Amino acid sequence: MSINNVQRIVSHIRSGQFRILNDVLRSHTCVYNSKAYLSSAGTVTGQKFILQNKFKGFPKESDVKLLEEELPALQDGQFLCESVYISVDPYQRAYYQRVGDVVLGSQVARIIDSKNPRYPVGKHVIGNYGWKTHHILDDSPSRLGFSTVIIPESVNQPLSYFLGILGMPGVTANFGLLEICQPKHGETVVVTGAAGAVGSLVGQIAKIKGCRVIGVVGSNEKGDWITKDLGFDGFINYKEDNFSKLLTKQAPNGVDCYFDNVGGEISTQIMRQMNLYGRISVCGAIAVYNSTKDEAKASIVQTPMVFKQLKMEGFLVNRWLNRWNEAVNENAQWLKEGKLKSRETITKGFENTFQAFTDMLKGVNFGKAIVEL
Amino acid sequence: MSINNVQRIVSHIRSGQFRILNDVLRSHTCVYNSKAYLSSAGTVTGQKFILQNKFKGFPKESDVKLLEEELPALQDGQFLCESVYISVDPYQRAYYQRVGDVVLGSQVARIIDSKNPRYPVGKHVIGNYGWKTHHILDDSPSRLGFSTVIIPESVNQPLSYFLGILGMPGVTANFGLLEICQPKHGETVVVTGAAGAVGSLVGQIAKIKGCRVIGVVGSNEKGDWITKDLGFDGFINYKEDNFSKLLTKQAPNGVDCYFDNVGGEISTQIMRQMNLYGRISVCGAIAVYNSTKDEAKASIVQTPMVFKQLKMEGFLVNRWLNRWNEAVNENAQWLKEGKLKSRETITKGFENTFQAFTDMLKGVNFGKAIVEL
Repeated sequence: MSINNVQRIVSHIRSGQFRILNDVLRSHTCVYNSKAYLSSAGTVTGQKFILQNKFKGFPKESDVKLLEEELPALQDGQFLCESVYISVDPYQRAYYQRVGDVVLGSQVARIIDSKNPRYPVGKHVIGNYGWKTHHILDDSPSRLGFSTVIIPESVNQPLSYFLGILGMPGVTANFGLLEICQPKHGETVVVTGAAGAVGSLVGQIAKIKGCRVIGVVGSNEKGDWITKDLGFDGFINYKEDNFSKLLTKQAPNGVDCYFDNVGGEISTQIMRQMNLYGRISVCGAIAVYNSTKDEAKASIVQTPMVFKQLKMEGFLVNRWLNRWNEAVNENAQWLKEGKLKSRETITKGFENTFQAFTDMLKGVNFGKAIVEL
Repeated sequence: MSINNVQRIVSHIRSGQFRILNDVLRSHTCVYNSKAYLSSAGTVTGQKFILQNKFKGFPKESDVKLLEEELPALQDGQFLCESVYISVDPYQRAYYQRVGDVVLGSQVARIIDSKNPRYPVGKHVIGNYGWKTHHILDDSPSRLGFSTVIIPESVNQPLSYFLGILGMPGVTANFGLLEICQPKHGETVVVTGAAGAVGSLVGQIAKIKGCRVIGVVGSNEKGDWITKDLGFDGFINYKEDNFSKLLTKQAPNGVDCYFDNVGGEISTQIMRQMNLYGRISVCGAIAVYNSTKDEAKASIVQTPMVFKQLKMEGFLVNRWLNRWNEAVNENAQWLKEGKLKSRETITKGFENTFQAFTDMLKGVNFGKAIVEL
């Protein structure tokens, strides 16, 4: 926390405008590097990234614009949050976003002022408010159907985990694998994007379920991490030649379950080595989010689908909104027992959010990519 | 039936070697144009097509070879059948076949001699014995898991229907649509290969279930048939430009169920217009069976799979072997009630089986493609 920011916060406290509690200032997980400052009129000014041009191909810095925004005074029922961690995820490239809107994204934020007794100052919340430093919120759910959730203090884990292993990616990995693939003890599970936020958890959960787990990654360094640290049984660096042969070697009994984060040619290659009645959970298609139409072609899936009688299902995690905590609690339990490990790649500074985003799209991150404000 | 053949059969009867019954000779559905003849040793000589070269690209006449074969005398438990109708189907192109083997195929055949009391002379059977005029069989199931089934005489329908609406294609259409897509009243169903043996039935069954049904076909003439005669709500000639626009026009509320006979680019285009939680039954991929590897590429399916949360399942009809008659009986009932119609494209003469096969692959047929011996 910089001296300047402390001085600003202290001045807020003195002015009585924000009731920032001591325990918030002392939080061990939150690096308080606020961009907020008081305008001459005494209101708060935050920052936000808006979409300036629709992403086309790989996102360019000029596609987004960093703006300041002055926030109005709180109304009854509202509360003011300041982002502590912002999550950068593949869906932010894939989802339709309107030009002029704040770029999509979720965060852990701290309540720094409140006129809503259910959301007291000092609590931390998880939300989907986009790439913004400050947010005036109320009880209503966001456009994706997520309500603002207060992080329970009983969970003694880093706050950032609520954007990863205990948040959307964790629920995605848990339900996406267990509900759709229904892996059985002794089966072979392949996961692509295996060093990413979701993939690294999928593989570990499949190991918990007693499967042989092969991760597909973009570097040997990542492969070493998922095998040596996370317990995957093997890895394939998809940048090497002869993907199919490498897969046959790693999965000599064929593939029963495939958790697909990438789509495209590799997915078809994997499907060709699946066993009868194999199950495929399609979580994303990061291989093609930045592609032109022609690049986004691959050998067709229908042939292995028919002859291996495969079942493939795509999903968005919000289908399990009403069972969300089941997965969070299960992941939290496994985390506590040391059966699940989390790794984060942290980029510091709100102004570097776009950089963190494109790094994630390039696969620079190990585990969850997070921006720390 | 040629005079020569009648004379041969009569000579068989006289010789007492074959107990061909009068009612078989009088059968209204069976054109008896047998290629069998007695060798000098008194045994039967049949004909068969064997695979001479693996199909590569579009099948060439030189890939198969017409051979004669002398059949040995019957052993206890065996019976001798003569093909009456042979079925040509897309799977015969798609399945792996060994060079030197008889080309895959099913038929309706008449029992013309028997040393098995469960299979008496004069009965007709359905089997998967390949492109052959004569077969010595016993009780054991074929390599695809189908047993030799005697056609019950109580079903007062043309024998050839047991290769179509009351046979494998009928069961495929019935279970493939109803079990996998589970179409609901008022939903929109799209079927490709809609003028084919399976597709034409799928659309009619979807109509019975109260759906809006759009068929994708390769000519306006086929489109006219499926809409005017079979009751489809609309059709798209995929050879016209702007498939996606035509689909939007035909399916203004989006597509809920897609029965996929073709695979490839059209399938992805349809998936892009599917509604949330849409279901796809993948029956075949005739669009690419004759393609080289590079031709068999299409825009990837994973993107619509994820964002529309689609469920896709490939199947082979023999997964329902133990429920086979459920579908046959249901189709037979609908046929009787006039709710299902069958059309056949008949090619005469065993020697023309290869021609019938490639015509079917080119989409020359309306409804079921059959070879009549």
